Formats: sequence, C-alpha cells, structure tokens
Amino acid sequence: MKWWGWGDPGRRLDLPATAVAALREELGAEPGDAAEPVALAEVSLPEQRPVPGPVRVAAGEVLDGEEDRLRRAVGRSYPDLVRLRSGRLEHAPDAVLRPPNIDAVEAVLGACEAAGVAVVPYGGGTSVVGGLDALRDGHEAVISLDLGHLRSVDLDARSLTARLGPGLSGPEAEAALAARGSTLGHFPQSFEQATIGGFAATRSAGQASSGYGRFDELVTAIELCAPAGRLRTREIPHTAAGPSLRELVLGSEGTIGVITEVSCRVRPAPDVRTYEGWMAEDFEAGREIVRDLAQRHEAPDVLRLSDEEETRVRLELAGTEGLRMRALDAYLSLRRRKGGCLIICGWEGERESVRRRRSLARSRLRLGGAVTLGASPGSSWDRNRYGGPYLRDELINLGVLVETLETAHTWRRLDELYSAVGAALRVALGEPSIVMCHVSHAYADGASLYFTFLTRARRGAELEQWREAKTAACEAIVAAEGTITHHHAVGRDHAPYMRAEIGELGLEALRAIKERLDPAGIMNPGKLMPRGG
Amino acid sequence: MKWWGWGDPGRRLDLPATAVAALREELGAEPGDAAEPVALAEVSLPEQRPVPGPVRVAAGEVLDGEEDRLRRAVGRSYPDLVRLRSGRLEHAPDAVLRPPNIDAVEAVLGACEAAGVAVVPYGGGTSVVGGLDALRDGHEAVISLDLGHLRSVDLDARSLTARLGPGLSGPEAEAALAARGSTLGHFPQSFEQATIGGFAATRSAGQASSGYGRFDELVTAIELCAPAGRLRTREIPHTAAGPSLRELVLGSEGTIGVITEVSCRVRPAPDVRTYEGWMAEDFEAGREIVRDLAQRHEAPDVLRLSDEEETRVRLELAGTEGLRMRALDAYLSLRRRKGGCLIICGWEGERESVRRRRSLARSRLRLGGAVTLGASPGSSWDRNRYGGPYLRDELINLGVLVETLETAHTWRRLDELYSAVGAALRVALGEPSIVMCHVSHAYADGASLYFTFLTRARRGAELEQWREAKTAACEAIVAAEGTITHHHAVGRDHAPYMRAEIGELGLEALRAIKERLDPAGIMNPGKLMPRGG
Repeated sequence: MKWWGWGDPGRRLDLPATAVAALREELGAEPGDAAEPVALAEVSLPEQRPVPGPVRVAAGEVLDGEEDRLRRAVGRSYPDLVRLRSGRLEHAPDAVLRPPNIDAVEAVLGACEAAGVAVVPYGGGTSVVGGLDALRDGHEAVISLDLGHLRSVDLDARSLTARLGPGLSGPEAEAALAARGSTLGHFPQSFEQATIGGFAATRSAGQASSGYGRFDELVTAIELCAPAGRLRTREIPHTAAGPSLRELVLGSEGTIGVITEVSCRVRPAPDVRTYEGWMAEDFEAGREIVRDLAQRHEAPDVLRLSDEEETRVRLELAGTEGLRMRALDAYLSLRRRKGGCLIICGWEGERESVRRRRSLARSRLRLGGAVTLGASPGSSWDRNRYGGPYLRDELINLGVLVETLETAHTWRRLDELYSAVGAALRVALGEPSIVMCHVSHAYADGASLYFTFLTRARRGAELEQWREAKTAACEAIVAAEGTITHHHAVGRDHAPYMRAEIGELGLEALRAIKERLDPAGIMNPGKLMPRGG
Repeated sequence: MKWWGWGDPGRRLDLPATAVAALREELGAEPGDAAEPVALAEVSLPEQRPVPGPVRVAAGEVLDGEEDRLRRAVGRSYPDLVRLRSGRLEHAPDAVLRPPNIDAVEAVLGACEAAGVAVVPYGGGTSVVGGLDALRDGHEAVISLDLGHLRSVDLDARSLTARLGPGLSGPEAEAALAARGSTLGHFPQSFEQATIGGFAATRSAGQASSGYGRFDELVTAIELCAPAGRLRTREIPHTAAGPSLRELVLGSEGTIGVITEVSCRVRPAPDVRTYEGWMAEDFEAGREIVRDLAQRHEAPDVLRLSDEEETRVRLELAGTEGLRMRALDAYLSLRRRKGGCLIICGWEGERESVRRRRSLARSRLRLGGAVTLGASPGSSWDRNRYGGPYLRDELINLGVLVETLETAHTWRRLDELYSAVGAALRVALGEPSIVMCHVSHAYADGASLYFTFLTRARRGAELEQWREAKTAACEAIVAAEGTITHHHAVGRDHAPYMRAEIGELGLEALRAIKERLDPAGIMNPGKLMPRGG
C-alpha cells in the first residue's frame, strides 16, 4: 500500500483532461490548488516510547522502524490522508508486533496487560472512521498488533464453510477458496487491501451483499482472544442458547479483544457473473424499483442506484469509457429520457439460476419505468469496482476535499433521511460543492444511503473543513433517527454519536462487557464508545 | 389453556383404538398404566409470601388467587406436566401482576428491585425448558409478570414492518396483520398459545423458517425494560454501529429485563399455500436432498424430513387419516420402496413464485431418489401442525413418558450427532422405547435435529426417569459439539450446559451484562446461566 494513500503504488488512475477541467470549473478549483504529498523523509512521527521487554518477547516479531510505525499509524479516511500527506501525525504506534500464531497473540495481550501497554489490532489498515488511531490513552505505550501471520484456510466442503485466519486479505482468501471451487462472495470497495479480521470487527458489507449476504451474515462462528481469556462460539448453523455472543464479537472493533479466527459460509464459485446498467426516471422512481425488488426477495446479487447528481458526475468523469456512455446518452435522448438515475444490476451463480433471476428482475425494472443500458455500464462498473480510493487520491492531488459516509433507514423514512443529510452537507460545504448519493444495500424493510461529497479544499484547513461537513451530516442522521453507520463502523469518528444510536443503557451494556473482557482497558482505546460519562 | 396440560380444554385429540393398542404393545404398557390428572381442588401450591404494597400499586392489576398462581407456576415441558398432573408443585409465584402499559412495567421493576422481589416475565406459558419456574432464589417473594395487556399492533406497510406488543399471542398477531393483508409467517408448534415476547426472548424458530426466517431474523428492533433502565435499538434495516444489542436482547429469556416491544419484518399474505409429501429412500438419502436444496438456496418454505422410525410411527398413529397413508404404502410397495423417510414440503407466496420454486425443488427431490406422495400427507401435516402437544397429553394419559429435544450441527457432523444422541437416549430409556427424529430447519451449512422419545412411564418416578434420558442426550450433544438447543432455548433445564456451549469467558460476558442491567439479580433467577462458579 502507498504510505500516503491507497493501494498499489505502481497503479494510478488517470483522470481524462476534460474531466479534470470540468470538475475544476464546477468546484471553482484552480490548477494551483494541486498538491502532492510530502516526501517520506519529511514525515515526522510523535516521540517513540520504549515497548517493555516481555511484550517484545511475547510477540516474536517486532518492527519498530519509522516506516513500520508510519504505515500502521492511521487508516484511510480523508482526514487520515490529509495527515499522512502533510507528514504531520499526532499519533503512531510505538512498535508493530506481528505474532506468528494465536498462542502468541494471547501471550502478547497478557504481557501488554501486565505492562500497561495499549493494543491496536491491525489487519489491512483500511478503516475510514479512525479505527486505527494509535491512542496511548494514559497507558505506558501503544503497539500495533499486526495479524499478518494469521492466514490459515480450512475449508469444509460438505458444510460449505471455511475457517479463516484474520490476517488473510480479501484476494488471499478468495484465491485459496477458488482453488477449491468456492467463493466467500464478500467484495467491499476495500476488498483488495482489507482483511477477514477487519471485515468481522467492523461488520463490513460487500457490493454483492444482496446475493451473498453481508459479512456478519456469512460468519457462523468466531474466536476472540481477549486480555481476560479466549472466547469461541460453537461451529453450528444456529442456536437458541441465549444472547448471541457471535453478534457481540462482530462489530467490536478491537475494543474487547482480537479476532483470531472466523468461520464463514462459502458458496460454489459462480459459473456466470453478469452486470448491466439501467436508467430510472429519477431517484424516487429508482428507489421504488429497488424497494419492489427487495420486498419481492428478487433483488439482483449486486443492486446499486445512483441519484441524479451521482449519475451526472459518473458520466462526466468517465473519460474514454465515457465515449460509450455518451452514446448511451444519445440513445436515452431518443427515448426522451434525460437526467435519470443509473442502476447497476449484477447476477452471479449457476447459468440457469442467473437467467431466471435476471429475467424476473428485468420485468420489474421495466414495470418501474427503467430503460435498459445494456452490459456496457455494468462491465465498466465491474472493472472499476475497487477504483474509488484510487480516484480519491487523484482528486486530493487536484486540491479537492472528497469524503464518503453512509447510513440506512426504513423505506418509510429513507427519503426524509436522504433530504436531510444532503441538505446538511450542502449547507456545511457551501457553494460550489457536489453532494451525491447511491443506494447499494437493499432490504425488504429499508436501504442504505452512501453519500460522496466534494468541494475545493481550504489549504491548511482541510481538517476543520472536513469536521464541519462530517458533523453536520452526523447530526442530520441522528435527528432523522437513521443509523450513524451502515457498514463503515464506528471507530473514533462516530463514537460521539453512539449515545444517540444505542442509548445510555446500551452503552452501559457495552462498557460492562469491555470491563469484564479487558479489565485494564488496553484494547483499542478511544474507539467505538464515547469518552467520559 | 388447560391448567394440567396443553391448549383448549374443549379440544381433545382422540387416538384411534388400533393405534393405542399398537403403541401399548410396542412400549410394553398396560391399560392399567392410564392415569388422569388430579382434580384442581387437590392441587397444593407452596406457601404464599406477601407481595409488598408498592409492587402491587405499581402493577395496577394483581391476581393472587390459587388458580392464578397455579396457571403461571410452570411451563409445558414433560416434567412440568408431571408436576401439574400430580398436583404437587415445588414453586409458584406469590402473585401475578398484569401491568396495563410499558410505563407500569417499568414501575413494577423499580418497585420489585427496591423491595427485593424476583420477577418471572410471563407470555404464553409455553416454555419447555423450565423457563418459567418461579424461583425466589433468596429474594423476599417472586411474582409472575404477565404481559397480557401489552398487545399493540402498528404496521408500516411501506417498510413491511410491524411494531408488536409482547403480549400478543401468535393468532392475535396474525389476525391483526391479516386484516391489513400481511403475515409474520412465524408458525412454531406453540403458535396457538405462545406470544411475541416469548418468541423473541427464546429465539423461537417456526415451521416455515426456511421461507420466512427464524424469529430472530424477523426482528428489526427491540425494546427492553430492565431494572437499570430502558434499552431500545434503532428501527433500521441494518447497522455497523458496534456489537448488536438486538442480538443481546434476543434469547435473554427474561434474565436481564422484560421485552416490551418488538419490531418485525412482515410479508404480504400469501396467495397460495401448498404442502405435499415425498418419500426418500432412507434418512441419509433424505438428508442429502435437504442439504442439496438448502445449499442451492432453493429450500421450500417448509421442509421437514422424518427418519425411518418417525415415519413408521407417524403411519402407525395416523388412524383414519392412515387409510389414505396405507394406500400410499401400497403404492410405494409397487415401486419397491418400503421403510423410507417422509419428507413434507410446503410453499407459500405468489402463485407464479410458488409454481416456479416448487418445480425446481421437485426436480431436485426426484434427482435425490425421492418418490412423490402427492398432497395428502402435506395437507394432513398442515391440519395437525399444532397438534403435537395435544397428542402428548393423550399419551401421558396412557401412562407414556414422551418428551422432545432439539439440537443442530454442520452437515459434516450431523450424522455423528444424530447417532450419538439417538444411542444415548436408547441406552438411558432402555427397552422397550421409541426414539425418533426429524430435520425441520435446514441451512446451507447444517441443520437442526428434533428428537421425540417415548417409553412406559415409571409411575411415581417419572421425573427421575426423564432426568436420566435428558442428561444422557445433553451429554451426547455436548460431546459431539452440537448446540444444546436449536430453538427451545435454555431456561433452567439447559443452564448446566451453558459452560460447555459458550465457555467460561462467554458466561462472564453474559454475567457482566446481567449485573449491569439487573444489579439486584431479580430478573428470572436460575435461568439461562448455570448456578455458582
């Protein structure tokens, strides 16, 4: 991963010059706004505290060079990227520990508890909510616990489940399963970098979650290594034996222990994968189509609806790909359809099942007034499905503030939430700015809303600018009683809103568990739960 | 409900004389074994302790007559029925409180906490695991908190969700939803008596759970009234905001508070409901068919496979219905199929969807070697789907010990579990006895096993006899690493096995939550968690 941004350092997403010009004009940005990250040598990390000997011994492998610390100091939210690129980091782990196995993880936690060292579990480093901030929080030191060596794969082909190590990246897990004809089917935008442990710790949801299920739905059993001991749930399809401890570990974000093994449902690798585009009349008509499909339990495996603004910007940024898109544009004009909303549908599975389900969905799309765009927008989406974070790096290079956030609500209140968050962002960002949204996870009872917003960055004041927009959006979500996060998790950024989300007694329940499993409070301090009170 | 048994006192399930004779012969039971319950006047309850004034005032409605106490003293497990019929009850609530609304529930809990009074939440009284035993557990008194007045229904037709009061019985909830064209689709065998609150508190799973989902899958939000305050989860389709508190309240069995409202997904009432029977070659072939359907995500909405023994006994007990079954028997002989395993399949929904899904499933059934029996066994099952507990009363009248228990495992280990539990029960019960089993909840990764066992009751020693069999089965389940309960919950009977199920740290997590939400330990003492240690 690039130390200052996303993904493969050798891969760059080049924006077409026309797109750059159009975007600059729209956001009132100047060519002089362009800014590259500082050189690696110019980065300054906070003072390094010594990590006690017993902790180092327990770990086996200790990395404590500047770059090791830098690379695990933050996640990949917009504020994280601003901090990295500026070379000024408030926090960094004092060392990186990479234990060889689960017993060593247990030993590290024991040693850290005894020595008063805080622990931040580290998988792929892709948190976009400040989940990796290396806060000492009054402890002697803070270490990053890199789970990179825990990468076992154990497939049960008869039960279609696999025990997976938390350190496996998305592609590593998929490659191991593909060799046995299986797939997990979990493809979030962070897929190429994120890990199994991170998916579980943050309740990740992938782009094909309508078909395969969100990650929490894939998990059948989980093991947690906590300072107070190990917790392992039974490997069974279901149980009525009390409150679900699996659901307690899922989403715990490293605050009660380290996830050391995850058993997941897998599926036979699909024979067919097919994606296509449709255009709905407007966002409301599109939402009704998505609702109809979800409530009939006939949603495609991938189902994504962009609002008018996101549809327009996608076409604008599409560049050479846009040639084909513009041809579609002409086609749509012929059908008197302008300024609609793009729908991407995808089906995966056995040929016959895909044919049948696609045919059903198509008839509902037509009934909802959507017009087919054929396979081209679908395959374009598929090619670029992990490209968003690369595009973000390019936009930041141009001097643009760009961030995403997501929420969810019931169908009855989804429009209210959409309007409220959009309005709050537009007010906070001021003119000129772009606020766009898509629905990417649909349920019988409601859907997620995923917002992307862009504005000209105020050089040197990016963090304040970001904070204003983020706060405005979060407050609008809370007021509309939506959820503060559908699949990005809580981390540090959303922790102040957890009281509104789950109430005082809900917080007390979480605190009670944390105090019992992590009595010294060393596990990922400052995340998930609000400070004080 | 009959005070000494199940359901409508005016309804009786008459066993045909031929079936009674065959059963007696098989179990070595004598006509002299027959035993009726004692008269209501002969029942003796334990001494009644006074319920403090503030508790009575908070409740609004207080019932403290003998019959009120008796009717809420136990659930409906075999040992419960033995105790009731003998007229000797070790425990009974000192009074029954029936608060008019949620605020009154809160007031009752506050008053009980202040006065040191234990609280057993009461819905339909159908626990089969000792979940209602009115244990004082060192407190001044124990009350039954009857939620019968909390029966509100609030449908959100756009989001296909409904807020339901915990005191609604299954038929009450369905009737209210049917008036608006909807259904919850939750039909456990206890449907006619059990309540919404009970379904949530025990993680109930209905007969059509493959289609509609288990009850825990239907719940989108939940409200808990605990001694320490109220907890309410957001009404949203999904969230990544930390560990799931909804999943913490589900299955909590009244031990951390009272469930005062449940929001559930509903569906449009089905246009078509159709059930039919098939015969698999043997239990192994049947399991492979069920596995195939579940792993293809093409399972019928109802899918139930009986083993050879259950198939045989069903045919034997079928009586006049059996005429038609015997005709099928002849038909099967013609096809050289004897002693197979009965499969009941059911589909519910829109006509076209049912047609399509049924056609798909039928082709898989045929491919698995099953032979169709047509609609007759299906409609027979549908007519008698809630009849099991009535039949049980008749069998106990004949002097038969009859009990059920259930577990679940992955497909890889299901046969091991089936053999181990069956063998343990047969050894514990001795000869002659009947041990039979069915699979009624199928998943991609595994399935449930539901055992029924019958033997001649040892008059006066029924509880010891039951304890031996139950212990043997539970120990076999634990040894095979299955779950101690798939959908009957933990209650008092399974509490000793919770350490094996979730481990010491899992217990510690549950205890930590209980201590925070119910610091005085008044909520349903002795249930869910093992005593001591």
